[in-house]
Amino acid sequence: MDIAILGYGTVGRGVGDIVERKTPQIRVKRILELPDRLTDPRMTSNFDDIAGDPSIDLVVECMGGIEPAHTFICRALAAGKHVVTSNKAVVAAHFDEFVQLAAEHDVSLYIEASVGGGIPWIASIAKARRTDTISSFMGIMNGTTNYIIDSMCKLGVDFGEALHEAQEMGYAERDPSADIDGIDVANKTIITASVSFDCACTRSLPVTGIRNITKADMDFFAEQGRVVKLIGRGVQEDGSYAVAVEPVALDAHTLEANVPSNFNLVTLVGDTVGELKFYGPGAGMLPTGNAIVQDILDCAEGQQRAYDFSKGCAYDPALLTNDYVLRASEAPGQGTPCGAGRWLLSGLTAVEARALYEGVLEKDPSAFIAALA
Amino acid sequence: MDIAILGYGTVGRGVGDIVERKTPQIRVKRILELPDRLTDPRMTSNFDDIAGDPSIDLVVECMGGIEPAHTFICRALAAGKHVVTSNKAVVAAHFDEFVQLAAEHDVSLYIEASVGGGIPWIASIAKARRTDTISSFMGIMNGTTNYIIDSMCKLGVDFGEALHEAQEMGYAERDPSADIDGIDVANKTIITASVSFDCACTRSLPVTGIRNITKADMDFFAEQGRVVKLIGRGVQEDGSYAVAVEPVALDAHTLEANVPSNFNLVTLVGDTVGELKFYGPGAGMLPTGNAIVQDILDCAEGQQRAYDFSKGCAYDPALLTNDYVLRASEAPGQGTPCGAGRWLLSGLTAVEARALYEGVLEKDPSAFIAALA
Repeated sequence: MDIAILGYGTVGRGVGDIVERKTPQIRVKRILELPDRLTDPRMTSNFDDIAGDPSIDLVVECMGGIEPAHTFICRALAAGKHVVTSNKAVVAAHFDEFVQLAAEHDVSLYIEASVGGGIPWIASIAKARRTDTISSFMGIMNGTTNYIIDSMCKLGVDFGEALHEAQEMGYAERDPSADIDGIDVANKTIITASVSFDCACTRSLPVTGIRNITKADMDFFAEQGRVVKLIGRGVQEDGSYAVAVEPVALDAHTLEANVPSNFNLVTLVGDTVGELKFYGPGAGMLPTGNAIVQDILDCAEGQQRAYDFSKGCAYDPALLTNDYVLRASEAPGQGTPCGAGRWLLSGLTAVEARALYEGVLEKDPSAFIAALA
Repeated sequence: MDIAILGYGTVGRGVGDIVERKTPQIRVKRILELPDRLTDPRMTSNFDDIAGDPSIDLVVECMGGIEPAHTFICRALAAGKHVVTSNKAVVAAHFDEFVQLAAEHDVSLYIEASVGGGIPWIASIAKARRTDTISSFMGIMNGTTNYIIDSMCKLGVDFGEALHEAQEMGYAERDPSADIDGIDVANKTIITASVSFDCACTRSLPVTGIRNITKADMDFFAEQGRVVKLIGRGVQEDGSYAVAVEPVALDAHTLEANVPSNFNLVTLVGDTVGELKFYGPGAGMLPTGNAIVQDILDCAEGQQRAYDFSKGCAYDPALLTNDYVLRASEAPGQGTPCGAGRWLLSGLTAVEARALYEGVLEKDPSAFIAALA
């Protein structure tokens, strides 16, 4: 099968490397790159060379960002080419549009690499969905923030130092906002919810990151036998669902609490299979490249991916309700004190907790909140 | 697709239940049962009614044990029917024969449910093998022994009491030998090694169970920040491999050390995908039934399973070398004392450790040994 790769950065090169060494049945025919980076005879900066080439069956998008990735994915699908992408931002933003276009042109959209790096997560959900209703999912979906939290725990350093170290190690971007503010996890949560619950998940979900977490916060929860992790999760019940991204203080003996370094751990609960957990490298050239190549091979073997988001699903915040611990310089006007400058807030939905936290942040920009679960 | 089920015990009924509720495209046409248990018009006690029915495409074997399961699987394959089985004992004993028969008759053998219950383990190995060389695997593959060890840790009870509770809960058999002596894990290790390393794995592997573990052993390792688990594992290097089943004292912060109750956790390491871990219910009517139904659906979708064990692979014990801690009433004649009645034995292969342990058991039938990893 002849394929084209859009973008030849870390992920694109990983795909090229694995295909060349491991899968003789796949050939990289064209590579889309910027005009000043055409270092290989297969490279072009003109997308028409790919969209207009009928011998290319599949397009791998590893450019990242929304545009021009969105336009190229739409054009590839409309040209009757299967699309494989690792780009969670563009899938979260345009999943419904891609799914409809793919159905109209009788091709498939493969998104394994968009969530959980090398973990076979999207394929496992699709497989479970053949027999099971998925009642909930949750997990550590961002390696950068897990690395930061793990360093804070193990080395006893504060957030700034752990972030700096993650940047030095290449685990965090120069601008870390997408990771530490939960945006990356929100995109992955939207994609996971859509695939798990068979509906185009809302983009208006409560999202709280770990920018404000301190060593004192970690110590406070450690005394209660808990470890804080940044968690994306979703639940579904009777045709309604809820999703959220927020720091969650978990029992120290859970598997999640013990996930080291920049690894991911994601969980689904199905009605016959029960609780399944999947752990692996959440990012990296070869793991993400591997997930893309697995999608390419699934396509080459004739395994289609058809999503149907037409049934609709109501967003019901009450489905995700927890107790929370808030640290703030002033009393929040509700809850009960549970330590110096900390309040226990009982039975809030994730939406209510986010609204309350946003109000608190206006007075205390360093405030921190975590769910207890 | 029309299928037949051999044996209608817990697992067989789980399959029937899931197929009826969830997969309208699959029909259970015949069920093989004992002559005095024919309570359903689809039931027969004559295997010829199944082997001779050309409308039956696939046979699900959930009888357990070696015979007559072995004979029926061979006859089904020879009759050109795909076979799905949850029977690890018969697969471990006759894997090579089944694979050759399936190839001769152009059908597939599906064995997902034979290892790890509802965990998509065999399919994930097969998927990883499309791109990766698997250098090692390891895991908690037996729910009964994990339940016993977890109870000993959490409730502070001794082995006998924990085993009794597991039997009361239905997690352990009246005769628990297959579980606590490591025989069940050995079968699963043989199957996993064969699939991971593409060779018919030896049945002569070192196997040590947890029959002799005491609360004092658990406490000894807990003081070192370790938890003992019964682990099956294998490594492969340059065309050679080694496998072993034995108690392993793991760092308390590993995911393995924190696996609760009767769950399983299995790990593979591939050269591009890195380390992947899979966690889920290791047994049970619906999880095991789910794994079988997933195999049936894979077959119905045309996903074949072709194994090739022809290349051969040398067994090299030196590939699995560890330090061990032995508890015995007499000094073993090697190693260094590391506590009352305990000796640290450095750099033994699993084969050497097993041989030494067998010698010690002749003098002290209650002796215990665990690898440090």
